[in-house]
Amino acid sequence: MNLVRVNMTKGTIVTELVPEKYKLLGNRGLVAHIAYDEIMPTCNPIGPRNKLIVASSPMEGLGVSCAGRISVGGKSPLTGGIKEANSGGVAGARLASHGIRAIIVEGRPEDRHLHILHINKNGMELIDAEDLRGKGTYETTHTLLERYGKYAAVISIGQAGEQLLCASGVFINDMEGDSGRTAARGGVGAIMGAKGLKAIVVENDGQFKRQVKDEAALQEARMALHKAILANPGSQFYTKLGTMGFMMPVHALGAMPAKGFTDGNYKNVELVNGDVLLANIAERGGEGKPTHACMPGCVVRCSNIYPDKQGKKIVSPLEYESGNLLGPNLCIDDLDSIARMTYQCNNYGLDSIEVGAALGVAAHAGILPWGDKERAAELIDEIAQGTHLGKIIGSGAAFVGKIFGIDKVPVVKGQAMAAYDPRGVKSMAVTYAMTPMGADHTAAVTFRSPIDHFHWEGAIDTSRTLQVSVAFYDTYFCSFIARGIGTDIHLMVNLFNSVFGTDFKDNAFMSDIGKEVIKHERMFNIAAGVTEEWVPEWMRHEPLMPHGRVSDIPESEYARYWDIDFWGEFPSVPARL
Amino acid sequence: MNLVRVNMTKGTIVTELVPEKYKLLGNRGLVAHIAYDEIMPTCNPIGPRNKLIVASSPMEGLGVSCAGRISVGGKSPLTGGIKEANSGGVAGARLASHGIRAIIVEGRPEDRHLHILHINKNGMELIDAEDLRGKGTYETTHTLLERYGKYAAVISIGQAGEQLLCASGVFINDMEGDSGRTAARGGVGAIMGAKGLKAIVVENDGQFKRQVKDEAALQEARMALHKAILANPGSQFYTKLGTMGFMMPVHALGAMPAKGFTDGNYKNVELVNGDVLLANIAERGGEGKPTHACMPGCVVRCSNIYPDKQGKKIVSPLEYESGNLLGPNLCIDDLDSIARMTYQCNNYGLDSIEVGAALGVAAHAGILPWGDKERAAELIDEIAQGTHLGKIIGSGAAFVGKIFGIDKVPVVKGQAMAAYDPRGVKSMAVTYAMTPMGADHTAAVTFRSPIDHFHWEGAIDTSRTLQVSVAFYDTYFCSFIARGIGTDIHLMVNLFNSVFGTDFKDNAFMSDIGKEVIKHERMFNIAAGVTEEWVPEWMRHEPLMPHGRVSDIPESEYARYWDIDFWGEFPSVPARL
Repeated sequence: MNLVRVNMTKGTIVTELVPEKYKLLGNRGLVAHIAYDEIMPTCNPIGPRNKLIVASSPMEGLGVSCAGRISVGGKSPLTGGIKEANSGGVAGARLASHGIRAIIVEGRPEDRHLHILHINKNGMELIDAEDLRGKGTYETTHTLLERYGKYAAVISIGQAGEQLLCASGVFINDMEGDSGRTAARGGVGAIMGAKGLKAIVVENDGQFKRQVKDEAALQEARMALHKAILANPGSQFYTKLGTMGFMMPVHALGAMPAKGFTDGNYKNVELVNGDVLLANIAERGGEGKPTHACMPGCVVRCSNIYPDKQGKKIVSPLEYESGNLLGPNLCIDDLDSIARMTYQCNNYGLDSIEVGAALGVAAHAGILPWGDKERAAELIDEIAQGTHLGKIIGSGAAFVGKIFGIDKVPVVKGQAMAAYDPRGVKSMAVTYAMTPMGADHTAAVTFRSPIDHFHWEGAIDTSRTLQVSVAFYDTYFCSFIARGIGTDIHLMVNLFNSVFGTDFKDNAFMSDIGKEVIKHERMFNIAAGVTEEWVPEWMRHEPLMPHGRVSDIPESEYARYWDIDFWGEFPSVPARL
Repeated sequence: MNLVRVNMTKGTIVTELVPEKYKLLGNRGLVAHIAYDEIMPTCNPIGPRNKLIVASSPMEGLGVSCAGRISVGGKSPLTGGIKEANSGGVAGARLASHGIRAIIVEGRPEDRHLHILHINKNGMELIDAEDLRGKGTYETTHTLLERYGKYAAVISIGQAGEQLLCASGVFINDMEGDSGRTAARGGVGAIMGAKGLKAIVVENDGQFKRQVKDEAALQEARMALHKAILANPGSQFYTKLGTMGFMMPVHALGAMPAKGFTDGNYKNVELVNGDVLLANIAERGGEGKPTHACMPGCVVRCSNIYPDKQGKKIVSPLEYESGNLLGPNLCIDDLDSIARMTYQCNNYGLDSIEVGAALGVAAHAGILPWGDKERAAELIDEIAQGTHLGKIIGSGAAFVGKIFGIDKVPVVKGQAMAAYDPRGVKSMAVTYAMTPMGADHTAAVTFRSPIDHFHWEGAIDTSRTLQVSVAFYDTYFCSFIARGIGTDIHLMVNLFNSVFGTDFKDNAFMSDIGKEVIKHERMFNIAAGVTEEWVPEWMRHEPLMPHGRVSDIPESEYARYWDIDFWGEFPSVPARL
């Protein structure tokens, strides 16, 4: 397979074979290694020396469930460290069908025009896209699918990415052509915008055939894997409720953010949870779907299509994170409004987590009345319009807090926490603090881990082990595959050996790969001058009511996180200037 | 002498003797040690666990020139690391006359009211100051001097500090009651604002008598010192031209920022330099003064009073940094406008360096036409008014750059560079990068050092040695004393031995103290997670025209900055949570 190197300064596109050292790597792992190897860690994230990396999985194109994910990354405009955000949709499949493991976008066009990178079986080209400036992702995607065929993949940014806002993401279409799949966090949309890239279009005419080591063994491994996923109650939970099913259990732990992360209880949680989602979909019918696959061949099908009262789709999917941060976090208890705000975020190319958290801080600043869903929606519109207030909110929660002088700001490394208050689930503080990604739940959501979430003991080990596991899965699959796999060591061993001809005997290789990924991410951050940061002072010292817990993991626990006994040696990392 | 500990949560004021370990420390050095010993490095700078430290000199009250300086510091809202900003004015003298070495302000009032800390010979009290909310520093100072006597010291914040803006500073009155003396950088005004402290008033009725070891020896040392200062051409330069005299020599080096740090040449520099300042003062007469002492007993007298065409004072002083950043940096060539903008900044309690740099970035963003002095002045007004755009600009250059997606932003650690482009004077990159203070010129202005400023060789050693020297002087004096002292080792040795009864034989103690100060500052930053940061990518890689130089100090040079051979051991620093 190939790496495609696009230089926006020169307008050149060069194809290279995937180097041997990256052979087994895709997605997050490939982003980590390429970023570490190639990006100047001290560069300006929106300058010409940052790179936008779009990576697919080496497991894609083989009919394996959950392997269609793509990762988008580079140096984060939001955190100043490495960033990888990943998403479902059809892009992974389309890239793999053209034999593309990753696209590396470098430089910056002199004229600052927007462009499309267009890929089909005849080749690749950059096309001026000033006609799409100011368009939302849905319209952009629709226009490009009209132009290039409805089964093409479109990876696009909205008005937020064009404005280089730190809360901007990258959006990918699903099988229905809906650009609601989001690689949203850390301002990756601004990296793409700074490259002058409005969209990457990959037509559905790829003819690349993957070679695997042992086709028969792969078929067997794949069947076993799919069977395990389908049989697993964890996967079934996703299929049934999607992530919106998290609302009640996280609330029960006192970890569901409410009122801008200042309340551990939300009185109207009964109005905005997964059951309400399912009931509304069932009752309203029409375009609604309680379960839905975002990627070709996914057997988990955690997605949904949420309709309005007339049965017309509002947004797909409606997920727990947006559901919480645009909902209870703002004291908004109306699922339809939350769905519409999620649509707005997707359309404008915004990270709905960051925007929800930023609106919560804005509410603390008195700009948004708690529970005012109309005003919240207007403020999201202002981001797309580029008003000064819109730009502040579109830069994320940390900026809103600094600019309005608010001290209760739920961020780590400048990035908003997702919908898990680390005072409710103590080990989430470890995830937020120690992952090189900022306060990013996708590094390890620990609330289902079988430990006492109300005390700090075990928090470090629980989050650390899960972070390594997730880093492995993120390198090949949607991490939701993990629940389906459970602890069956054969599933991954057989799959990998059949595809790559490796000779793994047990699943130790999984944590070896996961550790290497995180180590490369951390080394990038060290060279960039980004260190660990703990959850904010107020969460460590002011009890969250009604349960009265704080985030109280001792320094001595954090201090052992990077123990050499666990990770092995870290090479010394020079700053690169 | 005493430390005064004010707890704004409880409303208590407690006096403690200066501990033995701080006996020789004042100003910046005392801020460094107290911050390291007492402030939780991971606290929120505007939260209740940060502390505002106001420190005077142990040399004050003895008739020694340049010892009236005060330092204001804590954890910086702008950089996230330690911050000390210092200023002249009468506060040092008044504090010393009450036997106060430092005031440490802790906590935060529950009702978030503004207060005055009032000090006179009868004691100390906190007084509600909601009547002063929204007032500028000049009016605040005027009101308080009316109330407490015209020779009182007033240390105040303006509208910027009240809004907790990151570009807010702390302002001190001079002997004429003008609050134009500024401890401005790093958002120290926001620390004071977050404490609910509008002003500290110290009446001129102090009765504390300093005890020194040897009064006769002190008298002799003091006379020798003053004689040396007065005889030195470097001091005489300050007396004659003040810092505005830097404009032409820095421009000649191609280091005077123009057009938002994108031009190494300013065609109208002849209209805005020190000679123009002197000519205008001479021609206009009235309240203007070409030279002026900001502190009682200062023999350097680098300050000035700049009048308008009618001879009425516009601002005092007009200095090079504001002169450049609000002038050529914005392509503004009218000294009267620059003086008026400086007055605005002082009045609103703003760091004129940070605001000037922020306006330069705003100009890159198209918000401010280059050279538009009316619009620039309006934008400064907007900061005080608290408009959204005003709050963005009042948060400093880094915020403006992030929010408007500008990649040419002259900041290090989030703080704007002062008026020395590190491509013109290469060693300034070392000062900006390596001082724990962010891009703060006061750590070491190197353009007069006798090295080749156009090449990087020697840059590390020059800046490092000067940083240590300045850290020593900043702990006792206005650093402008240094030029007058030159290399005469007896001047400081005799002074210190006569005051403290120390037994220093040579001036090695000066660098020992300077190094300890910087080490404590750095250790605070390490515990806070703030690492070194280099000058921005574009300055390292894009030549500044017309001379075509970049900031090209190699990594290997930076890597030896903290050599143990130079600094001695650094203790390991735990994060404190």
